[in-house]
Amino acid sequence: MNLPDKVTICEVGLRDGLQNEKRLFTLQEKLALLNSVVKSGIKIIEVGSFVNPKAVPAMADTDELAKLMPKSSGIEYRALVANLRGVQRAHECGISKTKLTVSASEAHCLSNLNKLPAEIIHGFKDCVEYAQKQSLQLSGAISTAFGCPFQGKVPALQVENVVKEFLNLGITELSLSDTTGMANPKQVYNLCTMLKTKYPQVRWILHFHNTRGMALANIFAGMQAGITTYDGSFAGLGGCPFAPGASGNVATEDIVHMLDEMGIETNIDLLDVIETAKLAQSFAGRITESFILKAGRCQDLVK
Amino acid sequence: MNLPDKVTICEVGLRDGLQNEKRLFTLQEKLALLNSVVKSGIKIIEVGSFVNPKAVPAMADTDELAKLMPKSSGIEYRALVANLRGVQRAHECGISKTKLTVSASEAHCLSNLNKLPAEIIHGFKDCVEYAQKQSLQLSGAISTAFGCPFQGKVPALQVENVVKEFLNLGITELSLSDTTGMANPKQVYNLCTMLKTKYPQVRWILHFHNTRGMALANIFAGMQAGITTYDGSFAGLGGCPFAPGASGNVATEDIVHMLDEMGIETNIDLLDVIETAKLAQSFAGRITESFILKAGRCQDLVK
Repeated sequence: MNLPDKVTICEVGLRDGLQNEKRLFTLQEKLALLNSVVKSGIKIIEVGSFVNPKAVPAMADTDELAKLMPKSSGIEYRALVANLRGVQRAHECGISKTKLTVSASEAHCLSNLNKLPAEIIHGFKDCVEYAQKQSLQLSGAISTAFGCPFQGKVPALQVENVVKEFLNLGITELSLSDTTGMANPKQVYNLCTMLKTKYPQVRWILHFHNTRGMALANIFAGMQAGITTYDGSFAGLGGCPFAPGASGNVATEDIVHMLDEMGIETNIDLLDVIETAKLAQSFAGRITESFILKAGRCQDLVK
Repeated sequence: MNLPDKVTICEVGLRDGLQNEKRLFTLQEKLALLNSVVKSGIKIIEVGSFVNPKAVPAMADTDELAKLMPKSSGIEYRALVANLRGVQRAHECGISKTKLTVSASEAHCLSNLNKLPAEIIHGFKDCVEYAQKQSLQLSGAISTAFGCPFQGKVPALQVENVVKEFLNLGITELSLSDTTGMANPKQVYNLCTMLKTKYPQVRWILHFHNTRGMALANIFAGMQAGITTYDGSFAGLGGCPFAPGASGNVATEDIVHMLDEMGIETNIDLLDVIETAKLAQSFAGRITESFILKAGRCQDLVK
């Protein structure tokens, strides 16, 4: 069985977790969480998004948070953006990597923006030009890469078309997001194996939601396909707007715990990750979908 | 990737689910659940256990339930027993397969019964003699096969020793149970690959708890190791006595849903399985740890 020795975890709780929480977290709470994430050893942190604050009020203070970020070397802060204005806002507050997002699902793009995914990506050309001038890094996020409420299963070909468009723009870090928790491990293995083989120049990131319980199985499948970078959200924060009450993002502590148990190195301190998760849960004011917060680590059980 | 075309599911909710529920289910409720399980197409059903009713009051009416079981051909009813008296009670009420259980963990066996696993299995000889005379089938269940609260990780050698003892008694159907949800997919793959290669005469069954979110990943790992039979519990009923509030048995509907999504045949109707789970949840009187009951199937999301 082909498994990596080492895996990189990106913490997306401050963005994908919080933007789906009912309660608006204060700036001080966000900063406390950010500091806790940094302490745990996580080196890639998605701090928020630069989008319309009316559409996503939970992200309205991303600029302020960014200005307070601990400036530890070796940490990559990233933010989600939808257009050039987002890239510019990120740059203004010191975030050098922005993530441009598009849905792989043609039905989804047509329904939301009346454009095909390729047309949306063509619209990112101004972001690329700005980024080149300012020496900023761009990443591409492909949402609904496995399934979509508008069309069901998303064919691999639609995902590949989006990959090609991003590559045409010179963007070579791409994340595949299972936005609505519809991916299964066989599909993950097959899609990732195909893409990784055909596009070896890409740095792949996988982003799973645990809506139907398959997130850790999907990560296990992704690792077998050679993907070594995964998003997680502290305490499993976030939900699924399409299925109220269902689980959202897979919890960072559940991923790190599984990897620790499998002997796969993350350079992250699980006990610190659990402290971050407890903090996030206390701010959220609810019992979140985190297995390790409920059950403890395997080794905690041993008398 | 090596995956089976077809997988067999054993429903253990009536035993492992109910014995860990606070509420005692009535005989009529159990019968309604049993009929619902049969309707879904599941062909192996663990209906209860024949153990000391004072120790496990939830299983006290297993004899009565067994007498009411629908006598459909092609369905295998099984029950858990601890000794000869259990095998005899099962036989008296028409259950022809009993499952003798022992913990793979030496520390666990010594702590609970002051005996090593091998000594416990030697004590099953009278069960084997009785079963041979009465043409009954015996199965062996190896609990804490991956981890144990008394000793942590259970070494593969301890599991293999138990396997050898069962084989010495002529018992060739063996289940490996992750009783406390401590297994990880790498461990499952390695242990199952080793055992399946060295003991090809055994019919292997895997039994996972989702205590730390890894159950579906473990099933995915088990399938890659060539194991094609898995236990599940309707609605995810049951819990973990060592971690109150944590998830228990992996939900049958979550397994069948994943297999359906992966195109692996079960000959089980998922919608019927979901009906069983809803019934179980309504009897339990609580929201249980079932992803599919909370989120619906992938295809339910598609507009």
